[in-house]
Amino acid sequence: MSVTFDWDRAKRTGVPEAVFCPGKSGEQLAGILDDARARKTTILLTRMTDGQHCALPDRHREAVDYDPVSRTAVFGELQALRTSGEVGIVTAGSSDLPVACEAMRTLRFLGHEACLVTDVGVAGLWRLLDKVEQLRSYRILIAVAGMEGALFSTVTGLVPGLVIAVPSSVGYGVSQGGKAALTSALASCATGIVVVNIDNGFGAACAAQKVLDPLPLRPFSLAE
Amino acid sequence: MSVTFDWDRAKRTGVPEAVFCPGKSGEQLAGILDDARARKTTILLTRMTDGQHCALPDRHREAVDYDPVSRTAVFGELQALRTSGEVGIVTAGSSDLPVACEAMRTLRFLGHEACLVTDVGVAGLWRLLDKVEQLRSYRILIAVAGMEGALFSTVTGLVPGLVIAVPSSVGYGVSQGGKAALTSALASCATGIVVVNIDNGFGAACAAQKVLDPLPLRPFSLAE
Amino acid sequence: MSVTFDWDRAKRTGVPEAVFCPGKSGEQLAGILDDARARKTTILLTRMTDGQHCALPDRHREAVDYDPVSRTAVFGELQALRTSGEVGIVTAGSSDLPVACEAMRTLRFLGHEACLVTDVGVAGLWRLLDKVEQLRSYRILIAVAGMEGALFSTVTGLVPGLVIAVPSSVGYGVSQGGKAALTSALASCATGIVVVNIDNGFGAACAAQKVLDPLPLRPFSLAE
Amino acid sequence: MSVTFDWDRAKRTGVPEAVFCPGKSGEQLAGILDDARARKTTILLTRMTDGQHCALPDRHREAVDYDPVSRTAVFGELQALRTSGEVGIVTAGSSDLPVACEAMRTLRFLGHEACLVTDVGVAGLWRLLDKVEQLRSYRILIAVAGMEGALFSTVTGLVPGLVIAVPSSVGYGVSQGGKAALTSALASCATGIVVVNIDNGFGAACAAQKVLDPLPLRPFSLAE
Amino acid sequence: MSVTFDWDRAKRTGVPEAVFCPGKSGEQLAGILDDARARKTTILLTRMTDGQHCALPDRHREAVDYDPVSRTAVFGELQALRTSGEVGIVTAGSSDLPVACEAMRTLRFLGHEACLVTDVGVAGLWRLLDKVEQLRSYRILIAVAGMEGALFSTVTGLVPGLVIAVPSSVGYGVSQGGKAALTSALASCATGIVVVNIDNGFGAACAAQKVLDPLPLRPFSLAE
Amino acid sequence: MSVTFDWDRAKRTGVPEAVFCPGKSGEQLAGILDDARARKTTILLTRMTDGQHCALPDRHREAVDYDPVSRTAVFGELQALRTSGEVGIVTAGSSDLPVACEAMRTLRFLGHEACLVTDVGVAGLWRLLDKVEQLRSYRILIAVAGMEGALFSTVTGLVPGLVIAVPSSVGYGVSQGGKAALTSALASCATGIVVVNIDNGFGAACAAQKVLDPLPLRPFSLAE
Amino acid sequence: MSVTFDWDRAKRTGVPEAVFCPGKSGEQLAGILDDARARKTTILLTRMTDGQHCALPDRHREAVDYDPVSRTAVFGELQALRTSGEVGIVTAGSSDLPVACEAMRTLRFLGHEACLVTDVGVAGLWRLLDKVEQLRSYRILIAVAGMEGALFSTVTGLVPGLVIAVPSSVGYGVSQGGKAALTSALASCATGIVVVNIDNGFGAACAAQKVLDPLPLRPFSLAE
Amino acid sequence: MSVTFDWDRAKRTGVPEAVFCPGKSGEQLAGILDDARARKTTILLTRMTDGQHCALPDRHREAVDYDPVSRTAVFGELQALRTSGEVGIVTAGSSDLPVACEAMRTLRFLGHEACLVTDVGVAGLWRLLDKVEQLRSYRILIAVAGMEGALFSTVTGLVPGLVIAVPSSVGYGVSQGGKAALTSALASCATGIVVVNIDNGFGAACAAQKVLDPLPLRPFSLAE
Repeated sequence: MSVTFDWDRAKRTGVPEAVFCPGKSGEQLAGILDDARARKTTILLTRMTDGQHCALPDRHREAVDYDPVSRTAVFGELQALRTSGEVGIVTAGSSDLPVACEAMRTLRFLGHEACLVTDVGVAGLWRLLDKVEQLRSYRILIAVAGMEGALFSTVTGLVPGLVIAVPSSVGYGVSQGGKAALTSALASCATGIVVVNIDNGFGAACAAQKVLDPLPLRPFSLAE
Repeated sequence: MSVTFDWDRAKRTGVPEAVFCPGKSGEQLAGILDDARARKTTILLTRMTDGQHCALPDRHREAVDYDPVSRTAVFGELQALRTSGEVGIVTAGSSDLPVACEAMRTLRFLGHEACLVTDVGVAGLWRLLDKVEQLRSYRILIAVAGMEGALFSTVTGLVPGLVIAVPSSVGYGVSQGGKAALTSALASCATGIVVVNIDNGFGAACAAQKVLDPLPLRPFSLAE
Repeated sequence: MSVTFDWDRAKRTGVPEAVFCPGKSGEQLAGILDDARARKTTILLTRMTDGQHCALPDRHREAVDYDPVSRTAVFGELQALRTSGEVGIVTAGSSDLPVACEAMRTLRFLGHEACLVTDVGVAGLWRLLDKVEQLRSYRILIAVAGMEGALFSTVTGLVPGLVIAVPSSVGYGVSQGGKAALTSALASCATGIVVVNIDNGFGAACAAQKVLDPLPLRPFSLAE
Repeated sequence: MSVTFDWDRAKRTGVPEAVFCPGKSGEQLAGILDDARARKTTILLTRMTDGQHCALPDRHREAVDYDPVSRTAVFGELQALRTSGEVGIVTAGSSDLPVACEAMRTLRFLGHEACLVTDVGVAGLWRLLDKVEQLRSYRILIAVAGMEGALFSTVTGLVPGLVIAVPSSVGYGVSQGGKAALTSALASCATGIVVVNIDNGFGAACAAQKVLDPLPLRPFSLAE
Repeated sequence: MSVTFDWDRAKRTGVPEAVFCPGKSGEQLAGILDDARARKTTILLTRMTDGQHCALPDRHREAVDYDPVSRTAVFGELQALRTSGEVGIVTAGSSDLPVACEAMRTLRFLGHEACLVTDVGVAGLWRLLDKVEQLRSYRILIAVAGMEGALFSTVTGLVPGLVIAVPSSVGYGVSQGGKAALTSALASCATGIVVVNIDNGFGAACAAQKVLDPLPLRPFSLAE
Repeated sequence: MSVTFDWDRAKRTGVPEAVFCPGKSGEQLAGILDDARARKTTILLTRMTDGQHCALPDRHREAVDYDPVSRTAVFGELQALRTSGEVGIVTAGSSDLPVACEAMRTLRFLGHEACLVTDVGVAGLWRLLDKVEQLRSYRILIAVAGMEGALFSTVTGLVPGLVIAVPSSVGYGVSQGGKAALTSALASCATGIVVVNIDNGFGAACAAQKVLDPLPLRPFSLAE
Repeated sequence: MSVTFDWDRAKRTGVPEAVFCPGKSGEQLAGILDDARARKTTILLTRMTDGQHCALPDRHREAVDYDPVSRTAVFGELQALRTSGEVGIVTAGSSDLPVACEAMRTLRFLGHEACLVTDVGVAGLWRLLDKVEQLRSYRILIAVAGMEGALFSTVTGLVPGLVIAVPSSVGYGVSQGGKAALTSALASCATGIVVVNIDNGFGAACAAQKVLDPLPLRPFSLAE
Repeated sequence: MSVTFDWDRAKRTGVPEAVFCPGKSGEQLAGILDDARARKTTILLTRMTDGQHCALPDRHREAVDYDPVSRTAVFGELQALRTSGEVGIVTAGSSDLPVACEAMRTLRFLGHEACLVTDVGVAGLWRLLDKVEQLRSYRILIAVAGMEGALFSTVTGLVPGLVIAVPSSVGYGVSQGGKAALTSALASCATGIVVVNIDNGFGAACAAQKVLDPLPLRPFSLAE
């Protein structure tokens, strides 16, 4: 059964719809890519497994820019960069990289180049403090952490930019599945922090874009 | 026992520390206000009950600008407005007003004037659609909703600005305490939405300020 | 060990018992189908995996009408339709299709033809609004949504028919397993909405049948 | 601060908006009633405490028909009955009466007369069996139960009508707050049952009305 | 690493320790069986997978009486029956059989013969009522049910014996994992019901034995 | 609104219905007592607050035997004892006394005299070991504990009788409300233990009665 | 009903039993103090409300050293200090003081003098860093924090001593009741941290004593 | 993508960083071991699966001391023992051995030799009592238990040393995943007990080291 893709979304909200791959068959994905090619539209695919990538028809598998760490793929020409260095992405540990890379690749797809600062978890605070000046230079800081998520409050208290917390599903026992990090981000005693769903690097990037890009001025009409 | 107030916070992070009133005695609050007067600093007090307001010494009670709906009080001179009309605040129902007003009053304290749009819950979608053009004009939209929080996804799909969702503790049964609205905001299928803790109008306003105000340029030194 | 099937249920409650396949061996399923053939009864099998379907003996596998999307199978002759176009089934996204199709196939088994409207999630509200007149024409609307389930409240506020919400186990992080969508449906601020268990398309269809079919008039006797 | 009441809702969805009283001040309630009087509209108020009733201005307190058991009030002339005896309301125990009466009073406000059958919890199954013929005569059965909610499955297996389960917040320990009864209703192995939020007698009545009243035929226009 | 088996338990508490197989290697299980043979002791093994059974050395695999439905194995001579027909075991559906059989086999190992009554879920109440006289004849009734567990309250209200409820991990959505049935059993409005852990047929049987067998009279000495 | 009391329950199940007082008005309680007097029936009232006791009419308040610790009241003549010393009731701490006394008073109402052993929590294991011989003498041991409920497993491993665990809502933090003790009882590694709802001393006593009293022999007829 | 106090505990485990006041009547408390006076034993009372303190008989109220912040009271002569400056107690905010003071007072009762460092929450990291050298000087650091509990991981990564985390029930929304801080402490990515129950300053102090005091050498005999 | 390993941690906090293996590729692990060899540093790897061990390059696989029970590996020369017999490790059942061995191996890596006492669950209390004198000889007792975790309170009440509770993810039904044991440990009524995350034998060992080793005296400088 084919999928009704929302090709109008970018025009309406300024954020193109991405293809969330879980549960989609190879046939469904190929159909979407065929459409994208016909429309000469660049699209982003998220949460694509290696298996889904391999199962694409040759004409598509060779055309997509697939990244196995972030499990994202871009199909079509990337737009030119509109900003660079306005967004930092910071991770607590190396297990947070897939989520951080999903955010970075999504931002690039949306026209923004972000900087990545890894492995600055608060258990070794000096690693974080070594980077403070760099972290203070970003308008937006996307922070990715699992376990107890103590990075979120600590970093928010140190920087002047907006912090977007992305809890990652890293941990075991009470932190299994990312709930502990999510709760820490929401309950943070620091100010200037906002939160997205667990592992939602894509969502953090879309929120960042809404801050970076000027408002579309065109009036909105539901009847259009 | 007196409270160690963090007078340096504004200098460090650009957001002055507010006084979170729950659990503080009249004596502790009076001590903080005495300090503020001596330092000629304007401060914001949040979650102040009518009882706490009444229990202030006369010299303070008359000086604070107390608002019983939002349970906030401002002590000292308000700074001049830096922006107006960049932030909209939208509520699903009239029970969400206290949280919305906490956000609006905090924004004013921080130098930004927000517009309030009330009672546009999705159960009567026409009320929301009537306001779409207005809602599309804001760089930032703070959305406040309790119950099932369907407003968050619906409004995010309609506007180009960043949406900051504030779940409110309005509802009964499965929505008691705001958890249902919180989960709806985090799980939203719309893009460009970020979330703060339940009832945290103050936190939403601080996050908005981080977007509105340009980055402080002064280097950060922990040794300062 | 064979299964005691409740062949009397249709006579008693007006709803024939369906065979819930999870945990049943190929032998058990074959035994039930043998009985059904002997009794010349049409039966419905739900949640049948491809593996269970393949493992049926040839005589049954070829006789059943198996649908891999909804994972349902019908064995025997379908009864004539009693209504058509009284029920609409609406989904938020393409991942909700298996649940929607389980509802549609169950309704057909019970003698009612439903219409399917897909991919009208509220993140792209115009897609939903384009269908409003159609959705307003149904006596009953079965709405299927995962993630945050904002579709439930929005659609209920727009239509005059009864809305039966079926949360689907689509999502990740806080929406994993369908709990977020379930909570949204139950906490809905809209009126005229009722809810069934997560992924229970079958249950939604049985409830719809109880509305569509006139009451059996025969007195009920436990001693029968 | 006054409340924006949605006077258009009945015209749009066929269900007039009710006033949910918790958190509303006496002044706000009085303002709504003044408006209702000016519009010559009959309205329903739910979850009204004795305190809120007493605090109404004399002109309103004497005019409303207030019922302390269900904590509902009707203001204005009741419409004529459109059906009688189509809906049964059944309770497990006497503690479920407030919720059952909220449903009954809401139905009457909407033009339908329901019958009440009380104290038929399954711990004394004979009490339920004594009423089976009566219960089998209703098109819709609203079942109210707290504790473990075993009534829901048992009664659904006995009757041909649609069962709307309303879990009530009756119980202690694991059943405190109604969660156990809610889960029982959703997980029911019986077919033809749908569920609303804990204590939501009002919602059950509105859903019943959608079944009982024929569809409005007027097309829906958001631009209206 | 070998396992320290508690060979003294039967002497102390009257209930021999059973071997809980999950996580135990083939080598560990073989070691325990070697010991049992040397001590000429009969032992019970629970939750044994087919794989664990196959992996036993030939000398043991042929000697154990393994039942794949209940996943139990008995090694050694069964003791003579002390009672028969004092315990009934009743299930709601066919998926509850593994748990019911674990209880029945454990009881037999302990010297008691139980009767099994299957598929009497309350959705088809007449099936249960047909068996009422039989169910009323047992001193102890072990009831096994998953989904919403309505069987527990209904059956307890009908019989004079002690009901031991065993929630089974049968169901999906809100009933996944057996929590809904467990809560129903604990919250039951019926009297004379007690509960054990989810899927714990073994525990229910041990509790039944404590009722059936007379108290050991020998004084207990920790120094023994 | 008067309450339909189930005067037939004792005849059917051997356990007379008790009056669960929460939520019942003074008028409702008085009505039940009037009926009991007219029928010359002895009844038990549970969870009666001091306020409810005081609010009884003089003719009833003086006639009931009210115990403020267990919050139970007996109205009418107590039946003769059928057993004594067959049941022990053991508590971990003094805060568990209300629940223990509810069980003891209910047992007495049902014709059985229980022995109370208090303050033997496992943090001071010698206190428990001092009582082991006494505890080993009971056919049934009702154990009441809050906090972490370690008493349940420890005592079950020491005695040959059936242990009925009653978690009590004693504790703070993670043990608030009795959930920790409930979970401990259900997850116990000891055998021969069964569980009832939090604070349900009444239910434990009713279960004990079902063990102590011989089966009624009279056939059961729903048509009676 | 009097309370059986465990006067032998200190002799057995090295930690005297404290009196946990919640739920104890004035009479019960007075009885315990009478016993203590007769035995010339010093005892500690925890969680004593102002009301309980006032309700003591004059002979006791004047004799106890009551501290309303920590809600602890000491009755009798304090033992001489055995250590001083080995334990630090650090709090995130002023709302954590009651818990911190309970720990400090308990330690003093046990013969150890602790140092208190307040208001060093990570939202203002410089406040914490200013104290690092002091915090690094303690063998044991008791850390008290509510909200998201980020202090736990941060401070553990900075100091060489053992950190005992005490989550406090400070916060609202997702952090209500202390669960968020508890989870953060348990999930901490830092090493050398252990956790006690929410608000359990008393327990943290007792654990610290076990580290500070040399092992009792006397053999343990249950028969004693 | 290579991993930034924190080689400075030991110097700062006295506890060397261990390598948490889950999610790390063979390449990443090999890279870390290459670095360790170059730095002549001994490191510990935890949660290493057999698969990860096998996938190491030959040069590393032969050099590491891998233990499949605890799933830990040590790479490099072990330091000399600093203490022996100061720490006991006690388990409730044989399923707790992997966690207990992780603690024992980590302690050895840190320079401390611990003693292991297995299979002393409270269901057979005599087994625990037989070991009481031994258990009373340790300064620190690491207790590992799953299921209901009753061992924690019982053993803490018997010994003078500090008890570090490690809940293990052993059990089914309500104890699945270790939550029941965790809650029991936190809610314990015994004093002198502290808790770490589920299955965190490594963390318990690190905490023990902080007690056993004298404080580093070197001042801490973040600027270093």
